[in-house]
Amino acid sequence: MHQELAARKHDVVTVSRTGGDLQYDITDPAQVAEMFQTVGQVDAVASAAGHVPYKPVAELTADDYQAAFTGKVLSQVMLVKEGLTHVTGSFTLITGVLAREPIVTGAAASLANGAVEAFVKAAAIEIAPQRINAISPTVFTESLDVYGDFFPGMKPVPLADVVQAYVRSIEGRQTGQIYVP
Amino acid sequence: MHQELAARKHDVVTVSRTGGDLQYDITDPAQVAEMFQTVGQVDAVASAAGHVPYKPVAELTADDYQAAFTGKVLSQVMLVKEGLTHVTGSFTLITGVLAREPIVTGAAASLANGAVEAFVKAAAIEIAPQRINAISPTVFTESLDVYGDFFPGMKPVPLADVVQAYVRSIEGRQTGQIYVP
Repeated sequence: MHQELAARKHDVVTVSRTGGDLQYDITDPAQVAEMFQTVGQVDAVASAAGHVPYKPVAELTADDYQAAFTGKVLSQVMLVKEGLTHVTGSFTLITGVLAREPIVTGAAASLANGAVEAFVKAAAIEIAPQRINAISPTVFTESLDVYGDFFPGMKPVPLADVVQAYVRSIEGRQTGQIYVP
Repeated sequence: MHQELAARKHDVVTVSRTGGDLQYDITDPAQVAEMFQTVGQVDAVASAAGHVPYKPVAELTADDYQAAFTGKVLSQVMLVKEGLTHVTGSFTLITGVLAREPIVTGAAASLANGAVEAFVKAAAIEIAPQRINAISPTVFTESLDVYGDFFPGMKPVPLADVVQAYVRSIEGRQTGQIYVP
């Protein structure tokens, strides 16, 4: 994504827990605030971060669901909250196919994705002219050998198509959309 | 709901924090477990409980989103988790129109409803032959004078129709459905 956005003349700052231009953990709201203080005003925020546990429904604990909420929902929601005063254009969050097409062991992931998608639709009507969309990919073609068994018969999506969905969200003018690349 | 189900020859046990036949707070997983120990085996669990905060997106805090998650999502998810060994037929959870139709100040509610609906679809494929559905009403006709201003132009639903959606979930055989009464 970084390369494609740079090729399209965007000035990109990458952030992750351990790599990227800057190191922040977005599951910590204080670090999100600090990140925006450091980076200053930006046109767009594109999130591709979110960790959720995968276990059978009968084994998922309250702590597991809380981890899914903290790791993929609250983290991205606070990225928007803290970004409201630093972002002039758009927020693009990551969700996934499990919001609408469940798989075995994916209940916490489905829950998290459903939460993110509904939040995006709700936030959109309040933060205009700032925009917010979500990208909801299925399993990546490039990850099929690792995760393919969890998505039997489901058509994978090439990473390049997912990147174009981010481009569409960032450079387009739509808001409140769930893009399915 | 209680009266209609009793009229349909169901043996109903009502539970709430302060009223009902039994008093338990389902936001506490330990109380949910204790409730099932007390009641024993049941055919169906019907939940109509869930509290979420309403504020503008710019004012909703991490604690507010956490309260929405704890108050409407995790509470109902743990009702299913703990109920897996006590319920022979179905779970029916409550969600709401804000999962798909946002209103101003409803972002935390939308998030919670989206989470519940995606969880219901995911849990359904794992817990069969036990069933799980959600009821997703809009504003009640009976509450229009209190909440109507938040739902401009949206068609209200009479409580009697909402009750019939619960009946459909409990007495029907479908699973993984989001019923919109």
